[in-house]
Amino acid sequence: MTPVPDPGALVTELAGGSVRALARGLTWIEDGGPRAENLIERVYPQTGRAHVIGITGSPGSGKSTLVRALARAARARGKTVGVIAVDPTSPYSGGAILGDRIRMNDLALDPGVFIRSMATRGALGGLSRAAADAIDLMDAAGRDPIFVETVGVGQDEVEIASAAHSVVVVSVPGLGDDVQAIKAGVLEIADVHVVNKADREGADRTIADLRNMLMLAPMREGARMPPVLACVAAREEGIDALWDALAAHLDELKATGELERRRARIAHKRVLGIAHEVLARAVADPARGDTGPLLARVARRELSPHAAARALLATLPAATR
Amino acid sequence: MTPVPDPGALVTELAGGSVRALARGLTWIEDGGPRAENLIERVYPQTGRAHVIGITGSPGSGKSTLVRALARAARARGKTVGVIAVDPTSPYSGGAILGDRIRMNDLALDPGVFIRSMATRGALGGLSRAAADAIDLMDAAGRDPIFVETVGVGQDEVEIASAAHSVVVVSVPGLGDDVQAIKAGVLEIADVHVVNKADREGADRTIADLRNMLMLAPMREGARMPPVLACVAAREEGIDALWDALAAHLDELKATGELERRRARIAHKRVLGIAHEVLARAVADPARGDTGPLLARVARRELSPHAAARALLATLPAATR
Repeated sequence: MTPVPDPGALVTELAGGSVRALARGLTWIEDGGPRAENLIERVYPQTGRAHVIGITGSPGSGKSTLVRALARAARARGKTVGVIAVDPTSPYSGGAILGDRIRMNDLALDPGVFIRSMATRGALGGLSRAAADAIDLMDAAGRDPIFVETVGVGQDEVEIASAAHSVVVVSVPGLGDDVQAIKAGVLEIADVHVVNKADREGADRTIADLRNMLMLAPMREGARMPPVLACVAAREEGIDALWDALAAHLDELKATGELERRRARIAHKRVLGIAHEVLARAVADPARGDTGPLLARVARRELSPHAAARALLATLPAATR
Repeated sequence: MTPVPDPGALVTELAGGSVRALARGLTWIEDGGPRAENLIERVYPQTGRAHVIGITGSPGSGKSTLVRALARAARARGKTVGVIAVDPTSPYSGGAILGDRIRMNDLALDPGVFIRSMATRGALGGLSRAAADAIDLMDAAGRDPIFVETVGVGQDEVEIASAAHSVVVVSVPGLGDDVQAIKAGVLEIADVHVVNKADREGADRTIADLRNMLMLAPMREGARMPPVLACVAAREEGIDALWDALAAHLDELKATGELERRRARIAHKRVLGIAHEVLARAVADPARGDTGPLLARVARRELSPHAAARALLATLPAATR
């Protein structure tokens, strides 16, 4: 049996870039609880160095292949890479995630590319929290860039993508109106658009459609129009241009002060997410005797949900201290 | 100009079943804020009577047509119906919702069927809260049953469906493995499975596949296997059997005490959701001078997110009082 290292030793190994320490730390993170919290508390001062890049897009758009190609581009530039693949649509770690692992396999022997799949455990909030913690751990281990790949383009993905400094939205030619309608939800979070599988029929049309949508979309003040790039990730075509676009985006974030604003926004969402978790735990805590009767009164329609929420919040600090 | 009625008058009109009062109240609910909260506070004691039925399933499975057929079945039995159609995948109220409205149109002249579409405004939490409030309002206005139709079958839908007493999951023959994989996420929330468009080729196979999945799925203790029914909603075939299955499910909920447990669970989630909203508002409140500096310290890596969350919660009651 391997002895469990104390967090201090793990933190030291992490800072040295140990792949084994990273793997173990990520398992702690996934399990959650005080051990995970303690670990993040310790590594947090060493974070904030990596460029965190979110990759999202419809199922079948080839996100995993694209991430693999980007990871190779990063390796060719002497960088060590972290990849976090999250699947908020499935409560089970199932087929899609396994598929990702298999497709990622040709990178599995390179310790310079560390890939971790995460599926929902319980609420989405838990996954967002775990993904943010995993980014910190990879960051503390010197991984840069860190790719966060999410499945699908619903509200969940927007949530998780919001932990990234740069967001790449991947499209493919020839998907129907359904996908275009969904896309409205992620238009405003995209920093770079990529049309993958651009050797397929209809690629020019998809690129033109995207550019038209971007022209009509409401823009953040002072924001520039996101570039729309074409690539064929499976043949590694267009990857250098995408790499350059991401590097240019990071430069722009730094030059305009937007990087600091994004960091502040990420901190805001993360702190609030943790506060929500603490609150949910306190309410579910059986040692807290007042919650059950309070909720029973709501179920019996004797007390409104709003009044009960206020009552819970008012007594919270005593319960969490 | 119509004068704005005071909440008291609106509550009285609602209790009398006024369609106009219901429409106005739902607009208040969608706008949120103290007016919505006050309204729910007042109507809440009159709620808890309706059978709330969640309808979820993949896009294209014909949920809207099914809900329309069920609404007609309810009308034939002398009941007045409420329908809430929510789309958590789109931050904009767009095509899909409009499509629903048009398909629902043949019921538009019947005041006994009240249909309301809701799209995401800001966070998903806001939509869950608004949907729960809308259910209360329809309940107080004597609508029974109330159908809550959600688009897609991701984590968001599971969240919203959890506000219902009975959950119907709609499938269609001939969708690929992708959909089967997604379905894993909703298997455990389904009380009744419906295979719609059952006149299509492959319907028998889809029904058999579903039954096999259910046999293999982990079951709640004491739970019975959910029935798998076939229907062709567009021709109103199989709707009476579905209606009977839903009535039987409600009887079972009552007989086993599960209805009370579900009500308690719904109250728990709802109170927690409202507490989260109060917390998010307090953190975003510019009048609260300590939040900005605290979050800036997190962004600068001087303070961990967990420590900041605890600090926020500890000072919360003073800020919300």
